[in-house]
Amino acid sequence: MNDPRLTSVDALDRTVAHLEGIRPAGEAIPWVARRRYLHGGPPVALDELPGPMRGALLGVLVFEGEAEGTDQAEALLGSGAVELEPCHDHRCVGAMAGIVSPRMPVVVASAGSRRAFSPINEGLGKALRFGSNDPRTIARLDWLARSCAPALDRAIQASEPVDLTALVAEGLRRGDECHNRNVASSAALMGRLAPAVAEACPASEAARALAYGFGNRHFFLPFSIAAAKLLADAAHDVDGSPIVTAICGNGRRLGIRVSGLGDEWFTGPAPLGDARFFDGYGPGEATPVMGDSFVTEVCGWGAFALAAAPAIVSFIGGDVDSCRRVVDEMRSVCATESVRMLIPGERFRGTPVGIDVELVARLGIAPVVNNGIAHREPGVGQVGAGLTRLPLEPFVRAAGALAGSPGDRGARA
Amino acid sequence: MNDPRLTSVDALDRTVAHLEGIRPAGEAIPWVARRRYLHGGPPVALDELPGPMRGALLGVLVFEGEAEGTDQAEALLGSGAVELEPCHDHRCVGAMAGIVSPRMPVVVASAGSRRAFSPINEGLGKALRFGSNDPRTIARLDWLARSCAPALDRAIQASEPVDLTALVAEGLRRGDECHNRNVASSAALMGRLAPAVAEACPASEAARALAYGFGNRHFFLPFSIAAAKLLADAAHDVDGSPIVTAICGNGRRLGIRVSGLGDEWFTGPAPLGDARFFDGYGPGEATPVMGDSFVTEVCGWGAFALAAAPAIVSFIGGDVDSCRRVVDEMRSVCATESVRMLIPGERFRGTPVGIDVELVARLGIAPVVNNGIAHREPGVGQVGAGLTRLPLEPFVRAAGALAGSPGDRGARA
Repeated sequence: MNDPRLTSVDALDRTVAHLEGIRPAGEAIPWVARRRYLHGGPPVALDELPGPMRGALLGVLVFEGEAEGTDQAEALLGSGAVELEPCHDHRCVGAMAGIVSPRMPVVVASAGSRRAFSPINEGLGKALRFGSNDPRTIARLDWLARSCAPALDRAIQASEPVDLTALVAEGLRRGDECHNRNVASSAALMGRLAPAVAEACPASEAARALAYGFGNRHFFLPFSIAAAKLLADAAHDVDGSPIVTAICGNGRRLGIRVSGLGDEWFTGPAPLGDARFFDGYGPGEATPVMGDSFVTEVCGWGAFALAAAPAIVSFIGGDVDSCRRVVDEMRSVCATESVRMLIPGERFRGTPVGIDVELVARLGIAPVVNNGIAHREPGVGQVGAGLTRLPLEPFVRAAGALAGSPGDRGARA
Repeated sequence: MNDPRLTSVDALDRTVAHLEGIRPAGEAIPWVARRRYLHGGPPVALDELPGPMRGALLGVLVFEGEAEGTDQAEALLGSGAVELEPCHDHRCVGAMAGIVSPRMPVVVASAGSRRAFSPINEGLGKALRFGSNDPRTIARLDWLARSCAPALDRAIQASEPVDLTALVAEGLRRGDECHNRNVASSAALMGRLAPAVAEACPASEAARALAYGFGNRHFFLPFSIAAAKLLADAAHDVDGSPIVTAICGNGRRLGIRVSGLGDEWFTGPAPLGDARFFDGYGPGEATPVMGDSFVTEVCGWGAFALAAAPAIVSFIGGDVDSCRRVVDEMRSVCATESVRMLIPGERFRGTPVGIDVELVARLGIAPVVNNGIAHREPGVGQVGAGLTRLPLEPFVRAAGALAGSPGDRGARA
């Protein structure tokens, strides 16, 4: 079988991601260092940062002890003291703003000798990744870095190995799609670690770490997307392959990478999406799509597994039939169906996996992703969640580039 | 609204069950005392006990320190030293054999001033409730009684109140039907208790209790059925009501109680069911239905919520379409649909609730229940699980009794 599409997707769908630990980003990711941070999405200049990414960056400067408050942080940022690079360039995926600094704890996942990283999830609402930077947000992040993440890491080292891909597959059996609904998977992963947390930590520290993990309905998200990053990387760099291996936003532009097109970003305007807003907020206050977590859709979960998670509609809006329609529609632009990510309610049919830019361009059907929505101003936080139809433009441009690429001609010769 | 059917079902579907604690049965249930035990199902004589119930009883005599081994226990049992009464007569529900002795830890649930009890779940396979009584089974039960149950009880007392009915409703959103699939609900309940377990116990004791709870896919079952018992009791004793308020088996007979017919058991032969057997076992070795856990079906979960739990088919056999067909069929013999137990994949339609013996008799459609299967010989344990069609006979006889009852005439006058 020499179809480069299937070569990509087979590699993706066969990769098994294991949990290695939770480490400070400055130890785990070589490039991350003092005043050298990562951000979510395709490249963006410092003076173009959308509100929530800027809010997160100001917060991180306080968290890192570089500034005593956000005013000082503003001055520091203005002085050009901070370097920013995309998470994706450093095997990292960050939800929403995706700002990663040295002290920030990152989930470390591995597949063979490859590793991937994602910052630990702080919870919903007021969180750095949504642009919050008030003292409570920073204090929680500080506690996560000082106490909780080391406790969880000790528990991971003391526990049986955790197969993250198997947890995602089981998540689909428990009504999660492992992007915007992670509630059962969070409890499942925490349940695997809880005995070792109790054994490895003083009682009050253990109790607080367990309360955080079990109380955070999105605890599993960084584990899910770090695993997804490893799967997507396995599908990358196949000569002539039109399979999408990254989708991300920076609040300004939406970018994709394609297996057969190297590290080039194909971008279009970041869409707003059809969100369900939290009480008191509306579309006028929303930042367009942001973050790297759409890597779940790249791997056939998230919106592509929505029919496995009908209860999600109470969070993202819509109805159960629309969940099924989204998955059906995504089947038309994907190369195949997953052999391990199965939708029980659809007779255990595999989720659509392997977004093919040629199919997207030919059919004019852009992928749909699950999406958290951040307030457009720095410091506010999450204001909603929903489904978002991506712009066609990056997919069409990538398909065009592939048609003219030597790899493509080779594959078709 | 004076329809006695709806009076019953409204009371059932509005009752909220809270978790009170986990106590030794001898403290929680007044009648239970030295050599005075409970059993699952409708009344059965000591010399009629099916194999697994006899196996459990022998094991319990060892567990209680009445005998040094099962040989001594046999002699004691033969001497008439043990009294047995049905769980149901003491507000208790026991899965499978349902043998309850003073030291056995029972879940205590409450609704207002009413309480209900169910023995803590030991796990699948070799377990007392399936008739196992080997030294390892007894040692585990002993550890549960001495260490684990007190630890969990301390955690329950130290935690926020747990609404068990809300956990069941959320379980249906997480792919459980809360009878034969409890995997997500077990993790959810344990997650609520885990911080307090870590805080209330020495580290190694906490770790072992957490490992047991999170490692037991049926941990939630006794919490589910103790809650269900409170709901079913709320529906009982409504004059003229044809609603079923108990279904249970003793391995010989299947018995039901009906709201308008007091405490009379209407019985028929216990069926074998269409089970999926564990490797190496078949129908020839199975005990007919046994235990009180069909109280979940009485309340509109279990088999009546099967469409919410399509992943269960890997455990009980069948296919996803048959899950939906069972629920649809059960709608035809139920008085109404639950207002809070919703099936997300069926557009959040309520589960069928309130089995009406008149509808069962008129349509000739007997209820279907989820079922664990015990080996017919004492000491072996669980050999399978599956769906079981109940016999029509008890329902038809109850409908006949109701037609001739003064309460019924009153309701129709």
